[in-house]
Amino acid sequence: MTINVLFSASRRDWNVYETELLKAFAAQGLSVDLRPTPRSAPRDDTPTHAPREVDYLICTPDGAMADFSPFHRTKAVLSLWAGVENIAPNPTLTQPLVRMVDPSMTEGMVEWVTGHVLRHHLGTDRHVLDQSGAWRPEAPPLARERPVTILGIGALGQACAEALQGLNFPVTGWSRSQKTIPGIDCYDGAQGLSMALQSAEILVLLLPLTSATENIINARRLAEMPKGAVILNPGRGALIDDADLLSALDSGQISHATLDVFRIEPLPSDHRYWSHPQVTVTPHIASETRAPSASRMVAENIRRSENGEPLLNLVNRDAGY
Amino acid sequence: MTINVLFSASRRDWNVYETELLKAFAAQGLSVDLRPTPRSAPRDDTPTHAPREVDYLICTPDGAMADFSPFHRTKAVLSLWAGVENIAPNPTLTQPLVRMVDPSMTEGMVEWVTGHVLRHHLGTDRHVLDQSGAWRPEAPPLARERPVTILGIGALGQACAEALQGLNFPVTGWSRSQKTIPGIDCYDGAQGLSMALQSAEILVLLLPLTSATENIINARRLAEMPKGAVILNPGRGALIDDADLLSALDSGQISHATLDVFRIEPLPSDHRYWSHPQVTVTPHIASETRAPSASRMVAENIRRSENGEPLLNLVNRDAGY
Repeated sequence: MTINVLFSASRRDWNVYETELLKAFAAQGLSVDLRPTPRSAPRDDTPTHAPREVDYLICTPDGAMADFSPFHRTKAVLSLWAGVENIAPNPTLTQPLVRMVDPSMTEGMVEWVTGHVLRHHLGTDRHVLDQSGAWRPEAPPLARERPVTILGIGALGQACAEALQGLNFPVTGWSRSQKTIPGIDCYDGAQGLSMALQSAEILVLLLPLTSATENIINARRLAEMPKGAVILNPGRGALIDDADLLSALDSGQISHATLDVFRIEPLPSDHRYWSHPQVTVTPHIASETRAPSASRMVAENIRRSENGEPLLNLVNRDAGY
Repeated sequence: MTINVLFSASRRDWNVYETELLKAFAAQGLSVDLRPTPRSAPRDDTPTHAPREVDYLICTPDGAMADFSPFHRTKAVLSLWAGVENIAPNPTLTQPLVRMVDPSMTEGMVEWVTGHVLRHHLGTDRHVLDQSGAWRPEAPPLARERPVTILGIGALGQACAEALQGLNFPVTGWSRSQKTIPGIDCYDGAQGLSMALQSAEILVLLLPLTSATENIINARRLAEMPKGAVILNPGRGALIDDADLLSALDSGQISHATLDVFRIEPLPSDHRYWSHPQVTVTPHIASETRAPSASRMVAENIRRSENGEPLLNLVNRDAGY
């Protein structure tokens, strides 16, 4: 029996994903009729599926698909993005929601996090920015003397924690629910957050964005960190209270922030983050979904659903991720 | 029986090492009479050992100790530095020579190499140097698509290779003698060098400096690398023909060089390496010997020698390292 799959994303996404998805469905032995929404379609006459005929909906949570109520028979909504905060609270979305956990995305995130932790640990910017000829042979401490804390130790956070631990950094993790990871000091809850922050010479934010984590990094929490700490945010822009972070940078409580995600993207060119000397902006590149591996994840989940197996990376709608 | 040990280095070194060496000798159960040379001594009246009474000589190969012939009964000369090219060829040095292999030094080197490989891999400088407000979300390839070659896969090179492999970089190694390291493509010999260079998008130099390795990176070898490759040199300055490297940077054959070591140190402030936009100078900080762990290595070797066990890290005088 043919499975009807509808693709709701940008036209550019359709160009990138169409072939990879068809390959992945074939590899799972699925007979799929894959069609784009009119917005995703390359031409006006590209055939689509009516909502009532859709078995599975693949989408990017970019707001273009706002009403899920006409998708009566749809068995799952499969997000191409890891962050689902724009879609999880939608009251019309009653179908199971799956978020993307792409192994390539994890690899890219681990590389961005490890690279920027080492950049701040080694003090590389001093050399990149000042080649005036002054020879100041001050070696940094060793990684084992530099505590790193990761807020959010899900799939991405745990992979980063393991890579940093492999480079000898003492790693502390914090998450909403209690976790146990060998070699990593794990905390949870409000009290645990203070414990996790007080040793954080470098803090990495990898929490999902929910009502409980919005502005979690605010004046009170910044004051709990060691003076001169560094913040890396490859997670979600709204985890940080921007005004509070700028104050903490100006006072020296925080020595540097390297930020990859923002409340508004692209970050407006007149935003103070661009001009602040202790802030490095990177343009949401820490981790990107890659079509071949993401398509394999989507196809595997559809096969699982068709076989009555539990879906991977199902979103807990109460938690919001 | 008391063992006479003479310490020949700077006064600053004596201040750093005296206590650590005494602790390390005690930990090995050795009864040692440790004294500095007059040059290393904090005061003119500090007692020293006459050369003929010295059982072991600890020294930094800085040229201050030029004649080893009066040390008749000395059983070993223990260098505090890893690089022994200034002392190994000394014809008066007939005693066994041991070079420093300090675990802290290895850790520091792994962190410098991993940090700068990731810096170039991720293209971090672009963001550090340009915060003008232009949002260009171009993500780098994954580490598994970025081949790294390490020339010199001794203790330091192998530790770096393993750390890079742990971050998914495909690693190729080259050394004078044939080696086998799991997961790493190992080459040796002149033909092997061409093979090792031809895939090297990032090249790391960790060779010892000998007559065979001086200027090993010259115009011919630079031309064998992929266009736009990056060179990291935390090894020895004279491994590189400086004029040839500058030409290759100007032509675009090499896109960037990050150099930690130089023929003359401190690097003169008017050297072209400082002003060249595609060169980053770091002031010989990739790896430093740390007194506690280096002292433990020295004490262990003296205990081994006293017990008739083979010395660790004995220098092969023919090879020069």
